[in-house]
Amino acid sequence: MALIVQKYGGTSVGSLDRIRNVAARMKRTRDEGNQVVAVVSAMSGMTDNLIKMAKEISGNPSERELDVLLATGEQQSIALLAIALLEIGVDAASITGSQAGIHTTGSHTRGRILNMDPSLMQGFLAEGKTLVVAGFQGVTPDGMIHTLGRGGSDLTAIAVAAALKADVCQILTDVDGVYTCDPRVVKNARKLPEISYDEMLEMASSGSKVMQSRSVEFAKKFGVVFEVRSSLNDNPGTLVLEEHPNMENVVIRGVSIERSQARITITGIPDEPGMSGMILGALAEAEINLDMIISNIAHDGFARHSFTMHSSDLGKAQAALKPLLAGMPNSKIETEAGIAKLSAVGIGMRSHSGVAATMFKALGDAGINIGMISTSEIKIAVTVDETRIEDAARAVHDAFQLDKVPV
Amino acid sequence: MALIVQKYGGTSVGSLDRIRNVAARMKRTRDEGNQVVAVVSAMSGMTDNLIKMAKEISGNPSERELDVLLATGEQQSIALLAIALLEIGVDAASITGSQAGIHTTGSHTRGRILNMDPSLMQGFLAEGKTLVVAGFQGVTPDGMIHTLGRGGSDLTAIAVAAALKADVCQILTDVDGVYTCDPRVVKNARKLPEISYDEMLEMASSGSKVMQSRSVEFAKKFGVVFEVRSSLNDNPGTLVLEEHPNMENVVIRGVSIERSQARITITGIPDEPGMSGMILGALAEAEINLDMIISNIAHDGFARHSFTMHSSDLGKAQAALKPLLAGMPNSKIETEAGIAKLSAVGIGMRSHSGVAATMFKALGDAGINIGMISTSEIKIAVTVDETRIEDAARAVHDAFQLDKVPV
Repeated sequence: MALIVQKYGGTSVGSLDRIRNVAARMKRTRDEGNQVVAVVSAMSGMTDNLIKMAKEISGNPSERELDVLLATGEQQSIALLAIALLEIGVDAASITGSQAGIHTTGSHTRGRILNMDPSLMQGFLAEGKTLVVAGFQGVTPDGMIHTLGRGGSDLTAIAVAAALKADVCQILTDVDGVYTCDPRVVKNARKLPEISYDEMLEMASSGSKVMQSRSVEFAKKFGVVFEVRSSLNDNPGTLVLEEHPNMENVVIRGVSIERSQARITITGIPDEPGMSGMILGALAEAEINLDMIISNIAHDGFARHSFTMHSSDLGKAQAALKPLLAGMPNSKIETEAGIAKLSAVGIGMRSHSGVAATMFKALGDAGINIGMISTSEIKIAVTVDETRIEDAARAVHDAFQLDKVPV
Repeated sequence: MALIVQKYGGTSVGSLDRIRNVAARMKRTRDEGNQVVAVVSAMSGMTDNLIKMAKEISGNPSERELDVLLATGEQQSIALLAIALLEIGVDAASITGSQAGIHTTGSHTRGRILNMDPSLMQGFLAEGKTLVVAGFQGVTPDGMIHTLGRGGSDLTAIAVAAALKADVCQILTDVDGVYTCDPRVVKNARKLPEISYDEMLEMASSGSKVMQSRSVEFAKKFGVVFEVRSSLNDNPGTLVLEEHPNMENVVIRGVSIERSQARITITGIPDEPGMSGMILGALAEAEINLDMIISNIAHDGFARHSFTMHSSDLGKAQAALKPLLAGMPNSKIETEAGIAKLSAVGIGMRSHSGVAATMFKALGDAGINIGMISTSEIKIAVTVDETRIEDAARAVHDAFQLDKVPV
């Protein structure tokens, strides 16, 4: 008898009918001889409604109280799903984050999981119960309700799977797996049967919005093998797991794209210690997430820095830099919006040469100009004009023959 | 500095504007130099909506899961009210039933308070915080969410006041106190400045729907003085407290009426031991709440029983009695709907004679026929034709001059 953790997102439990469907799916899994633990999100729209109410009362609602408020969304889902399971004859019990022993730390609305005490869940499982656990929430050491922020339900599912030593953790969502590229962009994109944690992390941070990085990191840390699959059908999805030797045979696992990027380049920065720290510090303080960061010494003896960020942050970034650059008489700031990022990801890169050359040639042949370039051990990322990003994705996808099943 | 517990019902927190009003009222109480602990219900309509969702999924939803579901209503109220308090500069924190240390026992959806551990609340109060506690909910010894059933928020307020040794417990509601009679029926009904627990209990069980009996019983048991007052104005309400010698000077404290009553009379019951138990047992099993119960031996040597109940239970009661009476060949059942009950309540009855005579004369003078009569140490109750109940109330109210402030 296998123990299967299934995570259902807000869309999957977005109406009473959908809740009944989830219950039926869980019953099937159970009837096949498995123990089932579901981790569920709030019904879609619920969290936004609660935030809206809080914001009507206060422009800056207390984060502690937001946690108390938002946690009710998942609490309603688990009760309704448990009722639906009981109605079709499955002995089920709902479990809040606190009852699931999800102990958290960190600031309110952005909790991190500190440790897990799965004893209550284990007791219920020993009684043969099917469990419905509230995603996205835990409890602080002093007993306060704590939510885990965006992607929190995925994190809960991975943590519950780790704590219960589950055989499988299924992340059931509205996509049916991880693809070699976004199928809306590259028609012949192929669903990957498996992908390593590190590749999944690079894909996640490169615009593939299947899962938040921290859930993948948590799974990697605790060795939780999980599967991203559709909640709408029974097709196998994509297994995410520790890399194994066979995986290196594939040079590039996938290509991801991220639109609406912007670049800032600052030139004329005195080439002195501490300058980069000051600039990056000012941007961090303004809560701007930088993506690519490139620094160099120009021929004029001054340093130059380039960063990319989401284009909606561009104004805020310029404002944050202004007072700083006022003290550097030679500095100049140059901005560019309307760019996009393309990343090619694969652990095979480590043992194959010429990957960058193949990629740049493909882009060049397609007449696409490359802006910034940044690389990691298993990723090559470039910026291109946003109007050419789809062409760029198709060109790179074709160049590495990602539509073909590797032999 | 006094510690004041204020209970706000679902109507008082029924919209974001009303939540803001409650916050402003609490701030005023705080600014007057008091510590304030609010106990709040779910926003009006919320609990019904949640039950409706559960019933759409299952005709008979699990009571354990209903508790998990319904507890979210109060959890949302406390968070929103705490946010509203913080917005106007009051250092506030919301507290769930579990965090408030409300330990419960009994079956789900009908919890009883076992004991209280107010340490978390005391810690917050010591930090100078204003608290917002979720009414209607507690936690079982094994950590499960438990709701307290109808009137549960009043019970929470009384229990919190007892545990924190509060100076005052205010039950803020949509009536501004306890009246000598329902002012919609008796125009010159007078608001009582105080009433004893026992009188309040008799009034509650006689149709005065200000508070559920068990909250009053809990207050009496733990000596919690509480005040029923309006959430819409600052008028003093009615203090409910242990009786003191002065109270006995008043013969009748108030008159309460209960409509939609029905009577069943069974005649021809063998005068043997165990018969009453069988009949009452059958009605109890059918979950019918009997009110007045009168038994006697008739001149024919058979016993006769009469009971009153809510008229909506009449059909169910007849069905429950049918199989039983089939075995008593001389038995006959007679039913009467369309009656109402009038109760005159006052601890002064214990030391004054002629109270019943005055009451019956007043009803007779008004041409009102008395059906059943039942009495307790501090109550005389009669049934009358429902069409005459308002006349009856006015006649008895006048006879005891309840509109006049006693000297």
